[in-house]
Amino acid sequence: MTLPRKDLFHLPDGVIYLDGNSLGPLPVGVAQRVATTVRDEWGTDLIRAWNARGWMDQPRRMGNRIARLIGAPEGSVMVGDTLSLKVFQALSAALDRVPDRRVILSDTGNFPSDLYMADGLIALKDQGHHLRVVAPEAVTSELDETVAAVLLTQVDYRTGARHDLTKITQATHDVGAVMVWDLAHSAGAIDVDLTASGCDFAVGCTYKYLNGGPGAPAFIYVRPDLVDAVTPALSGWLGHQAPFDFERGYQPARGVDRMRVGTPPVVQMAALDAALDVWDSVNLPELWAASAALSERFIARVETACPALRLVSPRHPDLRGSHVSFAFDHAYPTMQALIDQGVIGDFRAPDILRFGITPLYLDETDIDRAVDTLQGVLDHRLWDRPRFATRKPVT
Amino acid sequence: MTLPRKDLFHLPDGVIYLDGNSLGPLPVGVAQRVATTVRDEWGTDLIRAWNARGWMDQPRRMGNRIARLIGAPEGSVMVGDTLSLKVFQALSAALDRVPDRRVILSDTGNFPSDLYMADGLIALKDQGHHLRVVAPEAVTSELDETVAAVLLTQVDYRTGARHDLTKITQATHDVGAVMVWDLAHSAGAIDVDLTASGCDFAVGCTYKYLNGGPGAPAFIYVRPDLVDAVTPALSGWLGHQAPFDFERGYQPARGVDRMRVGTPPVVQMAALDAALDVWDSVNLPELWAASAALSERFIARVETACPALRLVSPRHPDLRGSHVSFAFDHAYPTMQALIDQGVIGDFRAPDILRFGITPLYLDETDIDRAVDTLQGVLDHRLWDRPRFATRKPVT
Repeated sequence: MTLPRKDLFHLPDGVIYLDGNSLGPLPVGVAQRVATTVRDEWGTDLIRAWNARGWMDQPRRMGNRIARLIGAPEGSVMVGDTLSLKVFQALSAALDRVPDRRVILSDTGNFPSDLYMADGLIALKDQGHHLRVVAPEAVTSELDETVAAVLLTQVDYRTGARHDLTKITQATHDVGAVMVWDLAHSAGAIDVDLTASGCDFAVGCTYKYLNGGPGAPAFIYVRPDLVDAVTPALSGWLGHQAPFDFERGYQPARGVDRMRVGTPPVVQMAALDAALDVWDSVNLPELWAASAALSERFIARVETACPALRLVSPRHPDLRGSHVSFAFDHAYPTMQALIDQGVIGDFRAPDILRFGITPLYLDETDIDRAVDTLQGVLDHRLWDRPRFATRKPVT
Repeated sequence: MTLPRKDLFHLPDGVIYLDGNSLGPLPVGVAQRVATTVRDEWGTDLIRAWNARGWMDQPRRMGNRIARLIGAPEGSVMVGDTLSLKVFQALSAALDRVPDRRVILSDTGNFPSDLYMADGLIALKDQGHHLRVVAPEAVTSELDETVAAVLLTQVDYRTGARHDLTKITQATHDVGAVMVWDLAHSAGAIDVDLTASGCDFAVGCTYKYLNGGPGAPAFIYVRPDLVDAVTPALSGWLGHQAPFDFERGYQPARGVDRMRVGTPPVVQMAALDAALDVWDSVNLPELWAASAALSERFIARVETACPALRLVSPRHPDLRGSHVSFAFDHAYPTMQALIDQGVIGDFRAPDILRFGITPLYLDETDIDRAVDTLQGVLDHRLWDRPRFATRKPVT
């Protein structure tokens, strides 16, 4: 493999895309694949396509394709729904395993939706659970025998700081608690080995580094020795062992199929399937090494050219995911001005400029041009222009 | 409006499609619209498309387009997730309104996944709720002051029998209970007036009569005077009042936006948006009248030509939705043989042949040809051929 592989993506002219950690770019095979699913499968085969075109099996098939990217065995990952819902499923199953404890431990680097979903689950259960949210570096020291489950995003969505999967999982298990990892900023970015980590549950999304497209479905991993003891909280028919028998009683399917809920989003699944073809030719340790090298170059150049910015990501690459963040008082209009100049990163409240360093489609020239452009925005105080000040939401 | 409007759909040659109640056919505008979303929006605008192309507002915009098809006011319907998840959200909110009661009343005509989701919610809450499932005709007589919520699918997925929305809602309210309607087989099929019914919550899917495509997202309606008191059970970030502030605490958005959960499936939403264009030229009472006339013709001809089949749908059209079902001991292989001859209906366990009568793209000639083909299958005992006997799942 030689990186980058710009040939695998549709990248608009004049754009340097440093936001693949939010929405990956369009892989070249996707448009045709989606068109085929719409015109030939839906349009021609109609209802028959559920079997004839394998629609019903897509969630499991996509799960297996993702499994090998996160060090999980075949049959342990299921695709569907959204990441928030997969967090809900995983956390509910985690709490079931430790019925006598009431604390869910998380950290301030977790994505807010994970915490919101935990809040909602706690309110629903109404059994006195509570969510203890501590600083990322305090997680292991806060672990004790009151903790039922630990819910963490491996790579902090703002700072890019990376937790050690195996070490925290081990510490969690040492106090008899259950580990749930959110791999939103890990899958397709860094070398993840779920099996080696020993973790109980993991979830993630496919629209960031996996380039599955806007609104691409999420995934959930359940450690194989646990899965048949999981009682699904979101017990939809496609997680039933025989959905088309239309029985009155819910009987979960064997294995990770029980984490399915409703009808899968077939068109999004087709886009994801084509996007995952990219990974057939990618070696993840090599990808990570390239990301680290580009990130080091980016940090060094930004710190030289833009002294007003302050690195908020860890300095050592092994402590980061694949994005790099800097704090700056005028972060929002700075990012708007930067985007206006064709360098797309993103802003995260309150003051963070975030840059995804994705070596699949970025090279050193892109990095250098991005830094030059950022320097120009700062040197000319473009962030001070009124048209860059109005804030709009971006996911 | 003149019906049918076959010009609005891509219908494969040689097929008579009587399964639009399971998966609607491809509307002509969808393929181009999806291609534009993939290539021009995602491919070119990348992350900027969330604002520039209105992706973030799709769920509300689609909700408003559906609202006018089900007699709901603007701003009362939200699109997203799957129908099972919307059932979970609605039922959870319903139970919250009547905290001192423990019975959920449903009927044997409800779709199993609705009941499974109720089972899951009951187990999560662990407060002694239970699901009482009675015969469809017994619902009103089983209502009493132990009932917290009534959860019903308006049109029975097997028999096509239709509940009276307003009458049952009124009876439910008379005992102080909360009404949740599933409109899976109603929306786009019959004339629904949610406002007139007075019901509290409603949910539905968009891949059947609304032709949104395989895995198209679901919808949820909350009566406007209730919505700001709803505590969302699935409290994802996009239901937060300010998702991009990334606050620690979950604060639900005002209105039905709080029923959003995670990132919307943008490509499926684009397909749905194009599919809903069909409805700009459709008058629902006229559509229903055409459905009733075609259904009457179908029933009369089947009963004459195929005496082995037994009508299981109500005989009076006002008591039906837009599909018609017959029982037959050899229903499964009969449907396989019929599909093999180009007449596509579906089978529902254990012994039901189900035919969706959708006047948007069916005319009298189609109905007559379908019956002739069915008669041929029966007269020649094609169902007895081994190749039609192997059962496969079809959603």
